[in-house]
Amino acid sequence: MNASIITIGDELLIGQVVDTNSSWMGQELNKIGVYVIRKIVVGDVKRDIVDALDEAGAISDLVLITGGLGPTKDDITKHTLCDYFRGRLVFNEEVYEMVETYFARMKRPMLESNRRQAELPDNCIHIKNYNGTAPGMWFERDGKVFISMPGVPWEMKLMMQDNILARIKQKFETELIIHKTILTQGIGESFLSEHIRDIEDAFPEGIKLAYLPNLSSVRLRITARGKDESLLAEKVEMLTTQIKERLSEYIWGYDDDILEDVVGRMLISQQASLCTAESCTGGLIAHKLTSIPGSSVYFKGSIVSYSNEVKENLLSVKATTLRNFGAVSEESVHEMALGALKIMKTDYAIAVSGIAGPSGGTVDKPVGTVWIGIAKNEKVLTRKFLFPGNRERNMEMAAINGLSMLRKFMLSS
Amino acid sequence: MNASIITIGDELLIGQVVDTNSSWMGQELNKIGVYVIRKIVVGDVKRDIVDALDEAGAISDLVLITGGLGPTKDDITKHTLCDYFRGRLVFNEEVYEMVETYFARMKRPMLESNRRQAELPDNCIHIKNYNGTAPGMWFERDGKVFISMPGVPWEMKLMMQDNILARIKQKFETELIIHKTILTQGIGESFLSEHIRDIEDAFPEGIKLAYLPNLSSVRLRITARGKDESLLAEKVEMLTTQIKERLSEYIWGYDDDILEDVVGRMLISQQASLCTAESCTGGLIAHKLTSIPGSSVYFKGSIVSYSNEVKENLLSVKATTLRNFGAVSEESVHEMALGALKIMKTDYAIAVSGIAGPSGGTVDKPVGTVWIGIAKNEKVLTRKFLFPGNRERNMEMAAINGLSMLRKFMLSS
Repeated sequence: MNASIITIGDELLIGQVVDTNSSWMGQELNKIGVYVIRKIVVGDVKRDIVDALDEAGAISDLVLITGGLGPTKDDITKHTLCDYFRGRLVFNEEVYEMVETYFARMKRPMLESNRRQAELPDNCIHIKNYNGTAPGMWFERDGKVFISMPGVPWEMKLMMQDNILARIKQKFETELIIHKTILTQGIGESFLSEHIRDIEDAFPEGIKLAYLPNLSSVRLRITARGKDESLLAEKVEMLTTQIKERLSEYIWGYDDDILEDVVGRMLISQQASLCTAESCTGGLIAHKLTSIPGSSVYFKGSIVSYSNEVKENLLSVKATTLRNFGAVSEESVHEMALGALKIMKTDYAIAVSGIAGPSGGTVDKPVGTVWIGIAKNEKVLTRKFLFPGNRERNMEMAAINGLSMLRKFMLSS
Repeated sequence: MNASIITIGDELLIGQVVDTNSSWMGQELNKIGVYVIRKIVVGDVKRDIVDALDEAGAISDLVLITGGLGPTKDDITKHTLCDYFRGRLVFNEEVYEMVETYFARMKRPMLESNRRQAELPDNCIHIKNYNGTAPGMWFERDGKVFISMPGVPWEMKLMMQDNILARIKQKFETELIIHKTILTQGIGESFLSEHIRDIEDAFPEGIKLAYLPNLSSVRLRITARGKDESLLAEKVEMLTTQIKERLSEYIWGYDDDILEDVVGRMLISQQASLCTAESCTGGLIAHKLTSIPGSSVYFKGSIVSYSNEVKENLLSVKATTLRNFGAVSEESVHEMALGALKIMKTDYAIAVSGIAGPSGGTVDKPVGTVWIGIAKNEKVLTRKFLFPGNRERNMEMAAINGLSMLRKFMLSS
């Protein structure tokens, strides 16, 4: 079954806000067999919203709409939908109670503009919003469903999870969609494709392969659509196994695996602990590691040694090393890794020192030069990288490669 | 002048990739007076791409297209555009040389699939891609312009900056659009609106005000459109001043200001230095601070004290404090802040300890409980927060509030 998503808001068109809502919605809809075929973004302009509703309604059975439900003057979605479906705005007691409860919970007084949020078109079903004040609306016309939700991510998400997804499943009979994503690192898109060309060419009808490159890895996504769940799963599993055998040395995970989580699970299985000593990554590796719930079991902490003083005083990097080789050198990163192990008493350490840019580069050590060291006991593995990006990308690449080096180090030792 | 953006890729529809390209493009187009009125996202499906081209072409003079130009089988944008504009794919020597040079620079051999990337429709202008292998294409028909670019962000961005934006300015006479954004913190959207209702009601024709709430702040965006640059600028300036006077205590910055940069500039002007001691934020504050180029002038480093051992050994938090009050307490965060000042020898320190979740909460200290301390010399300011979010949001809110507290602390001291 097909759906379209309409997101409303001038802030999306001028690029002040990145639309993360519709990605999340696409994922959740996929899981219940609904395939998003189009997304349309329009501003807070009545005619444009109406055009989008016409277009989306013409090609899909289900139209999900977010945004433009706030209490302020620039938000016109509710009035526009009310007119579009020829309804009439009426005061809704149930919504009013929800808004009142919300303000009581937040210990804030209610304003007249919030009271107006309790008005609802008389021809829609009220979808409750437990995380905010703007109610959701479910309209039906000619067998098609239009659902309006707030643009605030956590309000929309709770509404979808609590109510809307179940209602959609109930209303429509959906086809099945199965995805399997293979996560690779250390090989480019074209080379991957060459490696598995014969497998891809022999893909059965109804199954697609997509290559999704990002900063330092390429994801291979297998998508299968059909009616018979076990048959689909079997086919996808078979193709995954074929690709897995061909590419094993490059594969580090599957589906929603996150590198820092994969590394964390390996540490748990070894009952080992980790710390980091970060110069140019400035805490990014620690941030990635601690974003995983439960990481306190294996991650003890980090020294972000942005200044040389901290490198010397806390990580015991020798002043002569810094003087003779510089902070961005194999020698310094070697001592940083061992110093971190010692002061934080962990089994493993990741140390990073580099030049993220935009300034600080030299002929010998241009911007993007990064040394990474992985230590366990007295053993230190070091490697030099030259990343081609700007500051943000260089930091990200350094963090990913630090985690990736640790993963390979643990596998080989 | 109006434009539409079409982004192509199944990965966008199923939500595997968040579209950040079109936000950036919207911003850049705005700067040269081009207003994006619609964005359309479609999959790698010929008919859907053609529909999107028809729709976008009907409502705008300029259509920007990204995605679907890779060397692999799932990418069909080039062929589709070639057919749509009734052209013929021909081998292009100039493109071939660029692809060859790219592979030589990356020290990688070229594949047959990369050679095919040098084929170009014979009725488009070649836009050079210095960061990758897929060429950009500029088509014109009936005075309208269609531009196709790769979906890889840094390839698209360089192409836009180097070439396309200048060409668009040359081709079209554009209306002016001026934005001014006022960044506030510590007050909700509805209350802001009440505070400045009379100012907003008196806004002149052609000027709009929008409220953009995010995690812990509300941005107010004034947008003015017209022909006379100095008149527009004057009007926007006048309205900004009115709002500024009304809301001064809540305003921390303007336009693209970033809180960590605002704090950094204040530190520079005081010639002061900063360090952080982070428990539940796990390095996120250090990461934010170091994402600002030049932050090494004032930021010395961080102790990410994820374990209590690190809190005791490196930050000199007393064992009795941890035992009697717990790591998430006013007492612990007080000692963490002073310990960080001492060991990293800085003027200011931010210390954070809290329960990010999802586990670890108790009745007394539920998930979202965060203590933040700001220290200078012997003076420590502490504050308790209770954030309502999940792990990711709680960490983000803690980081933003830590920086915000430091800002206010510096202003008042």
